[in-house]
Amino acid sequence: MSYRIGTGIDFHQLVEGRDLYIGGVKIPHTKGALGHSDADVLLHAICDALLGALALGDIGKHFPDTDASLKNIDSKILLQQTYNLINNKGYSVVNIDATVCLERPKIMPYAAQMRTVIAAILNITVDDISIKATTTEKMGFAGREEGLFANASVLLQKI
Amino acid sequence: MSYRIGTGIDFHQLVEGRDLYIGGVKIPHTKGALGHSDADVLLHAICDALLGALALGDIGKHFPDTDASLKNIDSKILLQQTYNLINNKGYSVVNIDATVCLERPKIMPYAAQMRTVIAAILNITVDDISIKATTTEKMGFAGREEGLFANASVLLQKI
Amino acid sequence: MSYRIGTGIDFHQLVEGRDLYIGGVKIPHTKGALGHSDADVLLHAICDALLGALALGDIGKHFPDTDASLKNIDSKILLQQTYNLINNKGYSVVNIDATVCLERPKIMPYAAQMRTVIAAILNITVDDISIKATTTEKMGFAGREEGLFANASVLLQKI
Ligand SMILES: [Zn+2]
Ligand SMILES: [Zn+2]
Ligand SMILES: [Zn+2]
Repeated sequence: MSYRIGTGIDFHQLVEGRDLYIGGVKIPHTKGALGHSDADVLLHAICDALLGALALGDIGKHFPDTDASLKNIDSKILLQQTYNLINNKGYSVVNIDATVCLERPKIMPYAAQMRTVIAAILNITVDDISIKATTTEKMGFAGREEGLFANASVLLQKI
Repeated sequence: MSYRIGTGIDFHQLVEGRDLYIGGVKIPHTKGALGHSDADVLLHAICDALLGALALGDIGKHFPDTDASLKNIDSKILLQQTYNLINNKGYSVVNIDATVCLERPKIMPYAAQMRTVIAAILNITVDDISIKATTTEKMGFAGREEGLFANASVLLQKI
Repeated sequence: MSYRIGTGIDFHQLVEGRDLYIGGVKIPHTKGALGHSDADVLLHAICDALLGALALGDIGKHFPDTDASLKNIDSKILLQQTYNLINNKGYSVVNIDATVCLERPKIMPYAAQMRTVIAAILNITVDDISIKATTTEKMGFAGREEGLFANASVLLQKI
Protein backbone atom coordinates (compact mmCIF):
# COMPACT_ATOMS: atom_id res chain seq x y z
CA MET A 1 0.00 0.00 0.00
CA SER A 2 1.42 3.35 -1.03
CA TYR A 3 0.50 6.36 1.11
CA ARG A 4 0.77 10.16 0.79
CA ILE A 5 0.21 12.90 3.36
CA GLY A 6 -1.29 16.36 2.86
CA THR A 7 -2.20 19.34 5.05
CA GLY A 8 -4.13 22.50 4.43
CA ILE A 9 -4.81 25.68 6.33
CA ASP A 10 -7.25 28.46 5.47
CA PHE A 11 -8.27 31.81 6.94
CA HIS A 12 -11.27 34.06 6.47
CA GLN A 13 -12.53 37.27 8.00
CA LEU A 14 -15.92 37.22 9.69
CA VAL A 15 -18.11 40.13 8.63
CA GLU A 16 -21.74 41.18 8.86
CA GLY A 17 -23.92 40.73 5.80
CA ARG A 18 -22.50 37.36 4.74
CA ASP A 19 -23.78 33.83 5.35
CA LEU A 20 -21.55 31.47 7.31
CA TYR A 21 -20.76 28.24 5.49
CA ILE A 22 -18.54 25.70 7.22
CA GLY A 23 -18.10 22.15 5.99
CA GLY A 24 -20.76 22.61 3.34
CA VAL A 25 -23.38 23.55 5.92
CA LYS A 26 -24.98 26.98 6.42
CA ILE A 27 -24.69 27.86 10.10
CA PRO A 28 -26.93 30.50 11.71
CA HIS A 29 -24.78 33.38 12.98
CA THR A 30 -24.66 37.16 13.04
CA LYS A 31 -21.59 37.17 10.78
CA GLY A 32 -20.38 35.21 7.78
CA ALA A 33 -16.98 34.50 6.22
CA LEU A 34 -15.72 36.99 3.66
CA GLY A 35 -14.34 35.66 0.39
CA HIS A 36 -14.71 35.37 -3.35
CA SER A 37 -16.46 32.00 -3.10
CA ASP A 38 -18.83 31.08 -0.26
CA ALA A 39 -15.66 31.29 1.89
CA ASP A 40 -16.07 27.84 3.45
CA VAL A 41 -12.90 27.70 5.55
CA LEU A 42 -13.15 23.97 6.27
CA LEU A 43 -13.77 22.82 2.71
CA HIS A 44 -10.95 25.07 1.51
CA ALA A 45 -8.53 23.57 4.04
CA ILE A 46 -9.54 20.09 2.90
CA CYS A 47 -9.13 21.04 -0.79
CA ASP A 48 -5.65 22.37 -0.06
CA ALA A 49 -4.70 19.22 1.86
CA LEU A 50 -5.87 16.99 -0.99
CA LEU A 51 -4.03 19.06 -3.60
CA GLY A 52 -0.91 19.20 -1.42
CA ALA A 53 -0.77 15.45 -0.92
CA LEU A 54 -0.20 15.02 -4.65
CA ALA A 55 1.74 18.28 -5.15
CA LEU A 56 -0.88 19.65 -7.51
CA GLY A 57 -0.49 23.26 -6.38
CA ASP A 58 -2.88 25.09 -4.09
CA ILE A 59 -6.49 26.16 -4.08
CA GLY A 60 -5.50 29.62 -5.33
CA LYS A 61 -4.02 28.03 -8.47
CA HIS A 62 -7.01 25.80 -9.23
CA PHE A 63 -9.73 28.22 -8.15
CA PRO A 64 -8.35 31.77 -8.42
CA ASP A 65 -10.30 34.58 -6.78
CA THR A 66 -9.94 36.50 -10.02
CA ASP A 67 -12.23 33.98 -11.76
CA ALA A 68 -15.62 35.67 -12.03
CA SER A 69 -17.32 32.29 -12.58
CA LEU A 70 -16.33 31.31 -9.02
CA LYS A 71 -17.99 34.36 -7.40
CA ASN A 72 -19.96 33.15 -4.35
CA ILE A 73 -19.61 29.57 -5.63
CA ASP A 74 -20.61 26.70 -3.36
CA SER A 75 -17.29 25.27 -2.15
CA LYS A 76 -18.73 21.76 -2.35
CA ILE A 77 -18.26 22.16 -6.10
CA LEU A 78 -14.59 23.01 -5.54
CA LEU A 79 -14.21 19.97 -3.28
CA GLN A 80 -15.82 17.74 -5.91
CA GLN A 81 -13.46 19.04 -8.59
CA THR A 82 -10.51 18.57 -6.27
CA TYR A 83 -11.59 15.01 -5.52
CA ASN A 84 -11.83 14.32 -9.24
CA LEU A 85 -8.21 15.42 -9.67
CA ILE A 86 -7.09 13.09 -6.87
CA ASN A 87 -9.14 10.22 -8.18
CA ASN A 88 -7.87 10.71 -11.73
CA LYS A 89 -4.34 10.44 -10.36
CA GLY A 90 -5.25 7.02 -8.97
CA TYR A 91 -5.59 7.89 -5.30
CA SER A 92 -8.34 7.46 -2.74
CA VAL A 93 -8.80 9.09 0.66
CA VAL A 94 -7.90 6.95 3.68
CA ASN A 95 -9.00 9.50 6.26
CA ILE A 96 -9.17 13.21 6.98
CA ASP A 97 -8.86 14.97 10.30
CA ALA A 98 -9.72 18.67 10.49
CA THR A 99 -10.07 21.34 13.15
CA VAL A 100 -11.98 24.60 12.85
CA CYS A 101 -10.70 27.38 15.14
CA LEU A 102 -13.24 30.06 15.98
CA GLU A 103 -14.62 31.76 19.05
CA ARG A 104 -18.28 31.59 18.05
CA PRO A 105 -20.69 30.08 17.14
CA LYS A 106 -20.55 26.48 18.38
CA ILE A 107 -20.24 24.35 15.27
CA MET A 108 -20.09 20.83 16.69
CA PRO A 109 -23.91 20.51 16.56
CA TYR A 110 -23.45 20.66 12.78
CA ALA A 111 -20.45 18.33 12.57
CA ALA A 112 -22.45 15.20 11.77
CA GLN A 113 -24.14 16.99 8.87
CA MET A 114 -20.79 18.33 7.61
CA ARG A 115 -19.28 14.85 7.73
CA THR A 116 -22.17 13.40 5.73
CA VAL A 117 -21.76 16.09 3.07
CA ILE A 118 -17.99 15.70 2.82
CA ALA A 119 -17.98 11.90 2.92
CA ALA A 120 -20.42 11.75 0.00
CA ILE A 121 -18.22 13.99 -2.14
CA LEU A 122 -14.99 12.18 -1.29
CA ASN A 123 -16.42 8.68 -1.62
CA ILE A 124 -15.56 7.71 1.96
CA THR A 125 -17.64 6.86 5.03
CA VAL A 126 -18.37 9.35 7.80
CA ASP A 127 -15.93 7.37 9.98
CA ASP A 128 -13.15 8.51 7.65
CA ILE A 129 -13.80 12.25 8.05
CA SER A 130 -13.22 13.87 11.42
CA ILE A 131 -14.26 17.43 12.25
CA LYS A 132 -13.18 19.02 15.48
CA ALA A 133 -13.58 22.55 16.82
CA THR A 134 -11.73 24.73 19.27
CA THR A 135 -11.72 28.33 20.33
CA THR A 136 -8.45 30.21 20.61
CA GLU A 137 -9.46 31.14 24.17
CA LYS A 138 -10.35 34.72 23.19
CA MET A 139 -6.81 35.33 21.92
CA GLY A 140 -5.74 36.73 18.57
CA PHE A 141 -7.95 37.58 15.60
CA ALA A 142 -10.05 34.46 16.02
CA GLY A 143 -10.48 35.20 19.71
CA ARG A 144 -11.64 38.73 18.86
CA GLU A 145 -14.11 37.20 16.35
CA GLU A 146 -12.49 39.09 13.50
CA GLY A 147 -12.07 35.82 11.65
CA LEU A 148 -11.69 32.06 11.76
CA PHE A 149 -9.30 29.46 10.43
CA ALA A 150 -9.22 25.74 9.82
CA ASN A 151 -6.60 23.10 9.23
CA ALA A 152 -6.99 19.67 7.68
CA SER A 153 -4.71 16.66 7.36
CA VAL A 154 -5.33 13.91 4.85
CA LEU A 155 -3.90 10.48 4.24
CA LEU A 156 -4.23 9.19 0.69
CA GLN A 157 -3.49 5.76 -0.71
CA LYS A 158 -2.75 4.59 -4.21
CA ILE A 159 -5.74 2.64 -5.47
CA MET B 1 -0.71 -2.50 7.46
CA SER B 2 -3.61 -0.06 7.75
CA TYR B 3 -2.79 3.51 8.79
CA ARG B 4 -4.75 6.57 9.94
CA ILE B 5 -3.64 10.18 10.42
CA GLY B 6 -4.76 12.66 13.08
CA THR B 7 -3.89 16.22 14.07
CA GLY B 8 -4.76 18.35 17.07
CA ILE B 9 -4.31 21.96 18.03
CA ASP B 10 -4.96 23.58 21.41
CA PHE B 11 -4.74 27.07 22.88
CA HIS B 12 -4.61 28.40 26.45
CA GLN B 13 -4.17 31.77 28.07
CA LEU B 14 -1.21 32.26 30.39
CA VAL B 15 -2.21 33.91 33.66
CA GLU B 16 -0.72 34.50 37.08
CA GLY B 17 -1.83 32.28 39.94
CA ARG B 18 -1.91 29.04 37.93
CA ASP B 19 0.65 26.25 37.64
CA LEU B 20 2.09 25.55 34.20
CA TYR B 21 1.65 21.93 33.07
CA ILE B 22 2.99 20.96 29.66
CA GLY B 23 3.31 17.36 28.52
CA GLY B 24 2.36 16.07 31.96
CA VAL B 25 5.22 17.94 33.60
CA LYS B 26 4.95 20.90 35.99
CA ILE B 27 7.24 23.62 34.70
CA PRO B 28 8.45 26.45 36.95
CA HIS B 29 7.19 29.80 35.60
CA THR B 30 5.58 33.02 36.77
CA LYS B 31 2.36 32.18 34.91
CA GLY B 32 0.29 29.07 34.28
CA ALA B 33 -2.22 28.01 31.66
CA LEU B 34 -5.85 28.89 32.29
CA GLY B 35 -8.48 26.20 31.83
CA HIS B 36 -11.06 23.96 33.40
CA SER B 37 -8.61 21.06 33.69
CA ASP B 38 -4.90 21.51 34.43
CA ALA B 39 -4.85 23.15 30.97
CA ASP B 40 -2.00 21.04 29.58
CA VAL B 41 -1.86 22.37 26.03
CA LEU B 42 0.40 19.60 24.74
CA LEU B 43 -1.57 16.66 26.16
CA HIS B 44 -4.79 18.24 24.89
CA ALA B 45 -3.38 18.58 21.37
CA ILE B 46 -2.31 14.93 21.49
CA CYS B 47 -5.74 13.82 22.77
CA ASP B 48 -7.43 15.70 19.94
CA ALA B 49 -5.08 14.17 17.36
CA LEU B 50 -5.78 10.66 18.65
CA LEU B 51 -9.53 11.23 18.69
CA GLY B 52 -9.42 12.83 15.25
CA ALA B 53 -7.53 9.96 13.67
CA LEU B 54 -10.49 7.69 14.38
CA ALA B 55 -13.18 10.37 13.96
CA LEU B 56 -14.31 9.99 17.56
CA GLY B 57 -15.15 13.68 18.04
CA ASP B 58 -12.98 16.17 19.89
CA ILE B 59 -11.70 16.69 23.41
CA GLY B 60 -14.60 19.04 24.17
CA LYS B 61 -17.04 16.21 23.45
CA HIS B 62 -15.27 13.63 25.58
CA PHE B 63 -14.14 15.92 28.38
CA PRO B 64 -16.51 18.92 28.48
CA ASP B 65 -15.49 21.93 30.53
CA THR B 66 -18.97 21.88 32.02
CA ASP B 67 -18.16 18.60 33.79
CA ALA B 68 -17.43 19.49 37.43
CA SER B 69 -15.61 16.18 37.95
CA LEU B 70 -12.94 17.35 35.48
CA LYS B 71 -12.18 20.59 37.39
CA ASN B 72 -8.39 20.97 37.57
CA ILE B 73 -8.02 17.32 36.51
CA ASP B 74 -4.60 15.99 35.60
CA SER B 75 -4.65 15.79 31.79
CA LYS B 76 -2.63 12.57 31.93
CA ILE B 77 -5.91 10.97 33.01
CA LEU B 78 -7.60 12.39 29.90
CA LEU B 79 -4.77 11.06 27.73
CA GLN B 80 -5.08 7.61 29.33
CA GLN B 81 -8.82 7.55 28.69
CA THR B 82 -8.26 8.71 25.12
CA TYR B 83 -5.67 5.98 24.58
CA ASN B 84 -8.13 3.40 25.91
CA LEU B 85 -10.65 4.51 23.29
CA ILE B 86 -8.07 4.13 20.51
CA ASN B 87 -6.89 0.80 21.81
CA ASN B 88 -10.44 -0.52 22.14
CA LYS B 89 -10.96 0.36 18.48
CA GLY B 90 -8.01 -1.89 17.63
CA TYR B 91 -5.40 0.76 16.88
CA SER B 92 -1.92 1.45 18.22
CA VAL B 93 0.22 4.57 17.93
CA VAL B 94 3.01 4.46 15.34
CA ASN B 95 4.46 7.84 16.23
CA ILE B 96 3.54 11.34 17.38
CA ASP B 97 5.20 14.61 16.51
CA ALA B 98 4.21 17.71 18.44
CA THR B 99 5.30 21.34 18.69
CA VAL B 100 4.63 23.73 21.55
CA CYS B 101 4.61 27.41 20.56
CA LEU B 102 5.35 29.84 23.38
CA GLU B 103 7.65 32.74 24.04
CA ARG B 104 8.74 31.68 27.51
CA PRO B 105 9.81 29.66 29.44
CA LYS B 106 12.21 27.30 27.65
CA ILE B 107 10.58 23.90 27.78
CA MET B 108 13.07 21.70 25.95
CA PRO B 109 14.96 20.92 29.20
CA TYR B 110 11.75 19.11 30.23
CA ALA B 111 11.13 17.37 26.90
CA ALA B 112 12.78 14.09 27.88
CA GLN B 113 10.61 13.89 30.99
CA MET B 114 7.47 14.71 28.98
CA ARG B 115 8.30 12.01 26.45
CA THR B 116 8.75 9.41 29.19
CA VAL B 117 5.39 10.32 30.71
CA ILE B 118 3.54 10.27 27.37
CA ALA B 119 5.21 7.11 26.05
CA ALA B 120 4.20 5.19 29.18
CA ILE B 121 0.55 6.19 28.78
CA LEU B 122 0.41 5.47 25.06
CA ASN B 123 2.31 2.18 25.25
CA ILE B 124 5.06 3.34 22.88
CA THR B 125 8.77 4.04 23.29
CA VAL B 126 10.21 7.52 23.76
CA ASP B 127 11.54 7.26 20.20
CA ASP B 128 7.93 7.29 19.01
CA ILE B 129 7.00 10.58 20.69
CA SER B 130 8.62 13.80 19.51
CA ILE B 131 8.27 17.10 21.33
CA LYS B 132 9.56 20.28 19.76
CA ALA B 133 9.31 23.91 20.83
CA THR B 134 9.39 27.25 19.08
CA THR B 135 8.67 30.85 19.89
CA THR B 136 6.53 32.94 17.59
CA GLU B 137 9.36 35.49 17.51
CA LYS B 138 7.54 37.90 19.84
CA MET B 139 4.60 38.12 17.41
CA GLY B 140 0.92 37.63 18.18
CA PHE B 141 -0.66 36.54 21.46
CA ALA B 142 1.99 33.90 22.09
CA GLY B 143 4.72 36.43 21.38
CA ARG B 144 3.16 38.84 23.86
CA GLU B 145 3.05 35.97 26.40
CA GLU B 146 -0.73 36.21 26.66
CA GLY B 147 -0.97 32.54 25.88
CA LEU B 148 0.50 29.47 24.23
CA PHE B 149 -0.59 26.82 21.75
CA ALA B 150 0.46 23.38 20.63
CA ASN B 151 -0.13 21.13 17.68
CA ALA B 152 0.31 17.39 17.40
CA SER B 153 0.23 14.93 14.53
CA VAL B 154 -0.25 11.22 15.04
CA LEU B 155 0.04 8.15 12.86
CA LEU B 156 -2.00 5.16 13.99
CA GLN B 157 -1.99 1.62 12.68
CA LYS B 158 -4.56 -1.15 12.92
CA ILE B 159 -3.27 -3.78 15.32
CA MET C 1 6.41 -0.72 4.55
CA SER C 2 7.01 1.16 7.79
CA TYR C 3 5.90 4.80 7.90
CA ARG C 4 6.45 7.78 10.23
CA ILE C 5 4.79 11.20 10.31
CA GLY C 6 6.33 14.56 11.16
CA THR C 7 5.18 18.18 11.25
CA GLY C 8 7.01 21.46 11.64
CA ILE C 9 6.02 25.07 12.13
CA ASP C 10 8.24 28.15 12.02
CA PHE C 11 7.80 31.89 12.49
CA HIS C 12 9.92 34.91 11.52
CA GLN C 13 9.53 38.64 11.71
CA LEU C 14 9.69 40.60 8.47
CA VAL C 15 11.99 43.62 8.71
CA GLU C 16 13.65 46.09 6.39
CA GLY C 17 17.32 45.60 5.57
CA ARG C 18 17.17 41.80 5.26
CA ASP C 19 16.88 39.57 2.20
CA LEU C 20 13.84 37.31 1.96
CA TYR C 21 14.70 33.64 1.51
CA ILE C 22 11.86 31.16 1.23
CA GLY C 23 12.33 27.57 0.16
CA GLY C 24 15.97 28.19 -0.67
CA VAL C 25 15.09 30.94 -3.13
CA LYS C 26 15.79 34.67 -2.75
CA ILE C 27 12.56 36.53 -3.37
CA PRO C 28 12.50 40.23 -4.27
CA HIS C 29 10.69 42.19 -1.55
CA THR C 30 10.98 45.34 0.52
CA LYS C 31 11.47 43.30 3.68
CA GLY C 32 13.30 40.14 4.67
CA ALA C 33 12.92 37.59 7.46
CA LEU C 34 14.80 38.27 10.67
CA GLY C 35 16.85 35.47 12.21
CA HIS C 36 20.25 34.13 13.13
CA SER C 37 20.52 32.10 9.90
CA ASP C 38 19.09 33.29 6.57
CA ALA C 39 15.71 32.84 8.34
CA ASP C 40 14.17 30.64 5.64
CA VAL C 41 10.80 29.90 7.24
CA LEU C 42 9.90 27.13 4.82
CA LEU C 43 13.16 25.20 5.01
CA HIS C 44 13.09 25.52 8.81
CA ALA C 45 9.56 24.08 8.98
CA ILE C 46 10.66 21.19 6.77
CA CYS C 47 13.77 20.56 8.90
CA ASP C 48 11.61 20.46 12.03
CA ALA C 49 9.14 18.07 10.41
CA LEU C 50 11.94 15.71 9.35
CA LEU C 51 13.55 15.80 12.81
CA GLY C 52 10.18 15.35 14.50
CA ALA C 53 9.25 12.30 12.44
CA LEU C 54 12.18 10.45 14.00
CA ALA C 55 12.01 12.20 17.39
CA LEU C 56 15.49 13.66 16.94
CA GLY C 57 14.72 16.92 18.76
CA ASP C 58 14.06 20.22 17.05
CA ILE C 59 15.92 22.67 14.84
CA GLY C 60 16.93 24.73 17.88
CA LYS C 61 18.74 21.71 19.30
CA HIS C 62 20.60 20.83 16.11
CA PHE C 63 21.25 24.38 14.90
CA PRO C 64 21.21 26.69 17.94
CA ASP C 65 21.02 30.43 17.34
CA THR C 66 23.87 30.80 19.81
CA ASP C 67 26.21 29.06 17.34
CA ALA C 68 28.28 31.82 15.70
CA SER C 69 29.21 29.50 12.82
CA LEU C 70 25.54 29.47 11.78
CA LYS C 71 25.25 33.27 11.53
CA ASN C 72 23.42 34.10 8.28
CA ILE C 73 23.97 30.52 7.11
CA ASP C 74 22.18 29.28 4.01
CA SER C 75 19.35 27.09 5.37
CA LYS C 76 19.84 24.68 2.48
CA ILE C 77 22.92 23.54 4.41
CA LEU C 78 20.75 22.92 7.47
CA LEU C 79 18.28 20.96 5.35
CA GLN C 80 21.10 18.87 3.88
CA GLN C 81 22.44 18.06 7.33
CA THR C 82 18.93 17.20 8.53
CA TYR C 83 18.43 14.92 5.55
CA ASN C 84 21.71 13.18 6.34
CA LEU C 85 20.45 12.44 9.85
CA ILE C 86 17.23 10.93 8.48
CA ASN C 87 19.05 8.95 5.87
CA ASN C 88 21.57 7.63 8.38
CA LYS C 89 18.65 6.38 10.46
CA GLY C 90 17.52 4.35 7.44
CA TYR C 91 14.57 6.48 6.33
CA SER C 92 13.62 8.14 3.06
CA VAL C 93 11.06 10.85 2.34
CA VAL C 94 7.76 9.69 0.81
CA ASN C 95 6.33 13.17 0.38
CA ILE C 96 6.19 16.62 1.95
CA ASP C 97 3.34 19.11 1.93
CA ALA C 98 4.01 22.63 3.15
CA THR C 99 2.15 25.93 3.32
CA VAL C 100 3.67 29.40 3.68
CA CYS C 101 1.37 31.95 5.30
CA LEU C 102 2.14 35.57 4.47
CA GLU C 103 0.34 38.63 3.21
CA ARG C 104 2.95 39.66 0.65
CA PRO C 105 4.74 39.11 -1.67
CA LYS C 106 3.19 36.45 -3.90
CA ILE C 107 5.53 33.47 -3.67
CA MET C 108 3.83 30.92 -5.93
CA PRO C 109 5.75 32.19 -9.00
CA TYR C 110 8.84 30.85 -7.20
CA ALA C 111 7.32 27.56 -6.04
CA ALA C 112 8.66 25.50 -8.94
CA GLN C 113 12.18 26.73 -8.24
CA MET C 114 11.80 26.02 -4.52
CA ARG C 115 10.58 22.50 -5.23
CA THR C 116 13.55 21.82 -7.50
CA VAL C 117 15.97 23.00 -4.81
CA ILE C 118 14.32 21.01 -2.02
CA ALA C 119 13.82 17.84 -4.05
CA ALA C 120 17.52 17.76 -4.96
CA ILE C 121 18.56 17.99 -1.31
CA LEU C 122 16.07 15.40 -0.08
CA ASN C 123 16.66 12.95 -2.93
CA ILE C 124 13.04 12.97 -4.06
CA THR C 125 11.27 14.17 -7.20
CA VAL C 126 9.48 17.50 -7.46
CA ASP C 127 6.22 15.55 -7.42
CA ASP C 128 7.02 14.56 -3.84
CA ILE C 129 7.38 18.11 -2.52
CA SER C 130 4.36 20.38 -2.42
CA ILE C 131 4.53 24.10 -1.64
CA LYS C 132 1.37 26.08 -1.13
CA ALA C 133 0.77 29.67 -0.06
CA THR C 134 -2.02 31.56 1.62
CA THR C 135 -2.56 34.94 3.16
CA THR C 136 -4.17 35.25 6.57
CA GLU C 137 -6.66 37.66 5.00
CA LYS C 138 -5.00 40.72 6.57
CA MET C 139 -5.53 39.31 10.07
CA GLY C 140 -2.98 38.91 12.84
CA PHE C 141 0.76 39.55 12.66
CA ALA C 142 1.08 37.94 9.23
CA GLY C 143 -1.85 40.00 7.98
CA ARG C 144 -0.19 43.16 9.25
CA GLU C 145 3.02 42.08 7.44
CA GLU C 146 4.94 42.02 10.73
CA GLY C 147 5.99 38.46 9.98
CA LEU C 148 5.30 35.19 8.24
CA PHE C 149 5.02 31.53 9.19
CA ALA C 150 5.11 28.15 7.51
CA ASN C 151 4.08 24.63 8.34
CA ALA C 152 5.23 21.38 6.79
CA SER C 153 4.09 17.78 7.08
CA VAL C 154 6.27 14.88 6.05
CA LEU C 155 5.74 11.19 5.54
CA LEU C 156 8.85 9.02 5.89
CA GLN C 157 9.33 5.35 5.17
CA LYS C 158 11.90 2.87 6.37
CA ILE C 159 14.22 2.06 3.50
ZN1 LIG D 1 -10.77 30.00 1.88
ZN1 LIG E 1 -6.68 22.61 26.29
ZN1 LIG F 1 13.23 29.70 11.43
